[in-house]
Amino acid sequence: MSAVGVSLNRVDGAEKVAGQAVYAGDLRLPGMAYAKVLRSPVPHARIRHIDSSKATAMPGVLGVLTRDNLNLISNSFGAYVRDQQIIASEKVRYVGDMVAAVAATDSTIAEEAVRLIEVDYDELPAIYTVEEALADNAPLVHEKLDNRKDPGYGRGGKHIVHDQSNICFHFRHERGDIEHGFQDSDQIFEDSFYFPSAQHYPIEPHVCVAQFEGDVLTVWSATQSPFPVRQELARVFGLPFSAVRVIVPYVGGGYGAKSGIKTEGIAACLSRMIGRPVKLAFGADETFRTICQPRAKITIKTGVKNDGTFVARHCEVYLNGGAYANSGPSVTEKAGYRAHGPYRIPHLLTNAYSVYTNTVPAGAFRGFGGPPVAFAYETHADMIAERLGIDPFEIRMKNLLDKGESFSHSDTPIDCDLKTGLKRIAQAIGWDARPNGQQNSGSKKSGIGIATAMKDGGGTNKPANAAVTIFNDGSVLLATGSVEVGQGMRTAFLQVVAEELSVPTDEVRVAALDTHSTPFDKGTNASSATSIMGQAVQRAARDARRQFLEAASAVLKAPAGAIRLEHGMATCGEQKLSFREVMQRHFRDSEGEIWGRGYFKIGKDENVPLGYPSPFWEIGFGAAEVEVDTETGEVKVLRYVSLTDAGKMINPLQCHAQDEGAAVFGLGQALFEDLVYQDGQLVNGSLIDYRLPTFNDVPPTFKTFIMEGEGGPGPYGAKGMGEGGILPVAPAVGNAVFAAVGKRLLGVPLTPGIVWQAISKG
Amino acid sequence: MSAVGVSLNRVDGAEKVAGQAVYAGDLRLPGMAYAKVLRSPVPHARIRHIDSSKATAMPGVLGVLTRDNLNLISNSFGAYVRDQQIIASEKVRYVGDMVAAVAATDSTIAEEAVRLIEVDYDELPAIYTVEEALADNAPLVHEKLDNRKDPGYGRGGKHIVHDQSNICFHFRHERGDIEHGFQDSDQIFEDSFYFPSAQHYPIEPHVCVAQFEGDVLTVWSATQSPFPVRQELARVFGLPFSAVRVIVPYVGGGYGAKSGIKTEGIAACLSRMIGRPVKLAFGADETFRTICQPRAKITIKTGVKNDGTFVARHCEVYLNGGAYANSGPSVTEKAGYRAHGPYRIPHLLTNAYSVYTNTVPAGAFRGFGGPPVAFAYETHADMIAERLGIDPFEIRMKNLLDKGESFSHSDTPIDCDLKTGLKRIAQAIGWDARPNGQQNSGSKKSGIGIATAMKDGGGTNKPANAAVTIFNDGSVLLATGSVEVGQGMRTAFLQVVAEELSVPTDEVRVAALDTHSTPFDKGTNASSATSIMGQAVQRAARDARRQFLEAASAVLKAPAGAIRLEHGMATCGEQKLSFREVMQRHFRDSEGEIWGRGYFKIGKDENVPLGYPSPFWEIGFGAAEVEVDTETGEVKVLRYVSLTDAGKMINPLQCHAQDEGAAVFGLGQALFEDLVYQDGQLVNGSLIDYRLPTFNDVPPTFKTFIMEGEGGPGPYGAKGMGEGGILPVAPAVGNAVFAAVGKRLLGVPLTPGIVWQAISKG
Repeated sequence: MSAVGVSLNRVDGAEKVAGQAVYAGDLRLPGMAYAKVLRSPVPHARIRHIDSSKATAMPGVLGVLTRDNLNLISNSFGAYVRDQQIIASEKVRYVGDMVAAVAATDSTIAEEAVRLIEVDYDELPAIYTVEEALADNAPLVHEKLDNRKDPGYGRGGKHIVHDQSNICFHFRHERGDIEHGFQDSDQIFEDSFYFPSAQHYPIEPHVCVAQFEGDVLTVWSATQSPFPVRQELARVFGLPFSAVRVIVPYVGGGYGAKSGIKTEGIAACLSRMIGRPVKLAFGADETFRTICQPRAKITIKTGVKNDGTFVARHCEVYLNGGAYANSGPSVTEKAGYRAHGPYRIPHLLTNAYSVYTNTVPAGAFRGFGGPPVAFAYETHADMIAERLGIDPFEIRMKNLLDKGESFSHSDTPIDCDLKTGLKRIAQAIGWDARPNGQQNSGSKKSGIGIATAMKDGGGTNKPANAAVTIFNDGSVLLATGSVEVGQGMRTAFLQVVAEELSVPTDEVRVAALDTHSTPFDKGTNASSATSIMGQAVQRAARDARRQFLEAASAVLKAPAGAIRLEHGMATCGEQKLSFREVMQRHFRDSEGEIWGRGYFKIGKDENVPLGYPSPFWEIGFGAAEVEVDTETGEVKVLRYVSLTDAGKMINPLQCHAQDEGAAVFGLGQALFEDLVYQDGQLVNGSLIDYRLPTFNDVPPTFKTFIMEGEGGPGPYGAKGMGEGGILPVAPAVGNAVFAAVGKRLLGVPLTPGIVWQAISKG
Repeated sequence: MSAVGVSLNRVDGAEKVAGQAVYAGDLRLPGMAYAKVLRSPVPHARIRHIDSSKATAMPGVLGVLTRDNLNLISNSFGAYVRDQQIIASEKVRYVGDMVAAVAATDSTIAEEAVRLIEVDYDELPAIYTVEEALADNAPLVHEKLDNRKDPGYGRGGKHIVHDQSNICFHFRHERGDIEHGFQDSDQIFEDSFYFPSAQHYPIEPHVCVAQFEGDVLTVWSATQSPFPVRQELARVFGLPFSAVRVIVPYVGGGYGAKSGIKTEGIAACLSRMIGRPVKLAFGADETFRTICQPRAKITIKTGVKNDGTFVARHCEVYLNGGAYANSGPSVTEKAGYRAHGPYRIPHLLTNAYSVYTNTVPAGAFRGFGGPPVAFAYETHADMIAERLGIDPFEIRMKNLLDKGESFSHSDTPIDCDLKTGLKRIAQAIGWDARPNGQQNSGSKKSGIGIATAMKDGGGTNKPANAAVTIFNDGSVLLATGSVEVGQGMRTAFLQVVAEELSVPTDEVRVAALDTHSTPFDKGTNASSATSIMGQAVQRAARDARRQFLEAASAVLKAPAGAIRLEHGMATCGEQKLSFREVMQRHFRDSEGEIWGRGYFKIGKDENVPLGYPSPFWEIGFGAAEVEVDTETGEVKVLRYVSLTDAGKMINPLQCHAQDEGAAVFGLGQALFEDLVYQDGQLVNGSLIDYRLPTFNDVPPTFKTFIMEGEGGPGPYGAKGMGEGGILPVAPAVGNAVFAAVGKRLLGVPLTPGIVWQAISKG
């Protein structure tokens, strides 16, 4: 292969570095107004009255949007439960809920006008934790949800939707006979774990520009899910899809935050109201108050044989979903489905719950429910090993699934060699000579921890469509609904197209994403771009190649099978023509184009618990050496080894960069990140107060291994691999801290205070 | 039919009236620079030296483009002859030729900086008229043209390309035996006619924004020919088509002016140079100096029988093409092909020449060579009638081609009833009781004139492509390369699509035009949108309908033939589903789309003089009553009747508006318009000095008749009809002036001075 497997420079790299790349926030349209939003200062209240007269009267204000002048067919939206409002109607449900919005000639005026809006709240008791939410007589975040919809894609697992409670969604997954399993076990261990909420922290906060031109709504949005956004906007405004156009310029990071409507609804309402384009750009502090990772409490009870063999496991997963469902139900289902880890466990029962509280709404986040459960089952695995006196490496080797074995009834067999992966990281970190408890300089102690985690990757029920055009000059354009969120998908796809068509990569470009011209896609998530969309891209390229060979066959007067395509040339015996020559001779003049289409979707299988087989298994194995300062509690990761399976690396440089990025994400959660509330107020929701990993926190020795098991559904066996790396970091670091200081911490982040407290408690 | 034949309001009307419609000039991109152009002040010179150092040093200047720092693969461009430069290299060839350009942070700075560029010219003798250009030893506008290309689409007519002369292009068309024909005639009459140059005068001057992002060039341009512009830009910059994206926002009128590269090349050079988007917006005075209608001199010699029957005709057509060819060769060919009029003439010889001079380049203009020759043959027809003592109506009735008769060997037969049309306008104007020479109030005399003209319409060798998408909610999007230049094409196409799919018109939208997603098209010209592209649109809609019926057949479990589509519903017996329901049941969820494609092209025919048959015959008949003030020479058109054949009116309101617009265009040329030069300087090239018809000049009685002969190649028999109305106005008015005052003027415009002079000479 000449284009695939090559570390081609990122095609959008130069313009991004040069500051030339255009993001939604860069757009300025003629007559454009700037919007700002008024957010609720209270966590839970009924809105008695809104007086926007002072704001409306302010010079420069073009329009004020409240529940009293909404210009929508429906104010409710939500991917799984239509529980959220474009603008608050009866109630506010968290500090940050959007109550009103102002469009003005500039953003300073809009900001000042927002402050002039007077809202009379009737405050209600609020709940912040899962425990509070599930207590008897807890106040209800949502009194009724008559438009709750079944996610519809799970069949074998059960979905239970509770009305008149704060449980938003419940997923139950069972196999074998859990009671029998526990009876059959030599020992039973039960532990509970806590995993923090976190902010996705994309460099670019939520932003869009919306414009009604006549009755056609165009939205330029920094979104990961342009087609679902189109669908929601069409519904709430009562417009046909053909009258809603979502265009996605470059996106400055998503990580799950940019799925579904964020700024688009309000900007579009205001644009319709004032007859101008409207930009609504959140500040980072507002993005903090828009969407986050759900806080998790996970209890795992495992029955084992004395030799460490897992027999039965019962998992209870509670996710704090915040005030609105977002994709929380789906995250909950996935967290539940993955909660027992990549192990052979005959008897299983998992319940996973998404629970409403009066906090920032939670939803999709890189790893999609995987990191909390991986922290739980991998800390739990080490704790079991410790109790049984077994080496943590050995207990995993004993229970890890083999390649080809089933993770779950009827689901896709395990598609790579987990044990080889584990051996590789153990060897790389020096497991056999680990310095556990070793005193380094002064008060610092070393320890090594490992973790092996897995998630079903590629999403569920995702159709993929792509289009490949060969222009009359032989150059090639790819149209795909996957969003370039920084993951490098444009470069990887371009390589696949160049490979399939046998043209140089610089003849291929990727079209801008526009729901009016790009084939339908469900959204860029679940490590699905290269793996799932890649398959549609490959098929579209092959469809175009087939048509091109027909054209070449006619021009060269030879059967298509006798024509070789290579380096942008079509060769047949002595004859050699460029793609351009073939196109122009076949179609004449400048008029002929070839349109290739590709479609790919994993087939439905009612026998599989989630209704569709997992496209592939995304793995993330990690090994960490930490140094804990016993005097301060500070944890430093000295060495980190990450391992994942890409199936096949389309672009090795990008694969390693993805895995590095995922591991650093994991480090943040292991060591620093949490959203801290006081009386319902998020107190560290700003660029200054929220602690993220910086380059100084990257381990001095940091290595990513990428296996190429070729077991994926993607082109050339590719699998998704952008999320695996995040999964094992927190448990690997936690296990290393235990190895260093003998203290087991059941939650992250491992901040100095918490670690010091654990140590000093003796 | 429920959608076609209805006077639907223009879909883009409201937003245009409200000022919300976005034109290229409205765009502002982040970091955008503003460009201005330095133009030659001399008509013909060699450039010795350009000193741009002062301009470059000026604060706010970002880049200065001259021949000395060109960043192109090729500086030459041109649709038929690559005789024009993006920026002047060796020579300037007319006053207004572009010599340098400046990009600056604002347009005032750019304008000032342009004045600081010093150009040292070596002036050359210049030629302004066809006579001067063809004189012995005339200076050559172009010394050599080694990249002249044969237009390639004409076969039966001969194309002679002259090197080492100022003849740019020569078309020869012959049939019968011209000498024998003259010998066979009773009388022979020869007259020469003059037709002015004119400015298209679109409300929006030439404008574009060009932006290199990485190595992908995006151009937002007010162009009628986005795909040819892409082709030229790709060639001059050495880029693949996939790296050149031309987007066309709304266009504020074209009329032929906006074909081919105008502002795009310079803006793109500057953008590449300075790494920012660049806007280049011409003023109206610059559009005057960019492209115009060619000035014409036409001599017609006709042999007739004493009863008025035409026997032989010899036409010599000279078009002053200005400094660069543009589409002049094609205009020349068409003017030549049409020069003998819609008459039965057995013996014919036409020579048509496009001649280079040192004046503003001339090219496509509404009517495309039709108005000058129609003025000639229709004035000539009246003069023959006068000399033979025959009624002008009768001489036309005698010689007009019948429906089904041949205009030219092997070409498409006449597709409508010309004689019925002529009778209709004669009746409407009151021909039989015409007040010729009648003294009205004071010095004012009345007269009535008629004219019958025709052109081959729809262009030559034009492929048409269209795509119709049915989205998952049943709504419909049309993608077509035709440009909405104000002619109402979006509305008409939407009606065709709604009709074919049996959906309400408000479910259908037309996609924005973008060469990265819109199927290929050669350009919006030659009255080809509804007639030629319309056929592709209809076929794409039918292709989508066929696929939709397959889907409905699967859902309703009935053969496609048993399903009726009506008002957005699919009905079969008792079952009735909306389009949305069919789509969602068939494709599930939100993922399914239907893509229909349509292609249409008139087949090649080597026997036809132009290589391809004329798609249809566009007719324009006119009758005018004028009042001439014999004291001042002022001509007022009191009544005007226009008649054309639409084949089938897709949108009657728009058809009448098109014909009214064309007739008013013709009035301008009849009465006011000309480009006046003094020593090579255009002296009336501004909004103030150039006289256009205003609402006050519209005849108090103004009527348009539109026949529906259903003889066209377009949907439901539609023909193009946006140019016919312009053809007969000047001769009808001229013939009416003769009828009023007995003076024959052999040229237009009929300005008061010229008419008074003719009258007062006695």
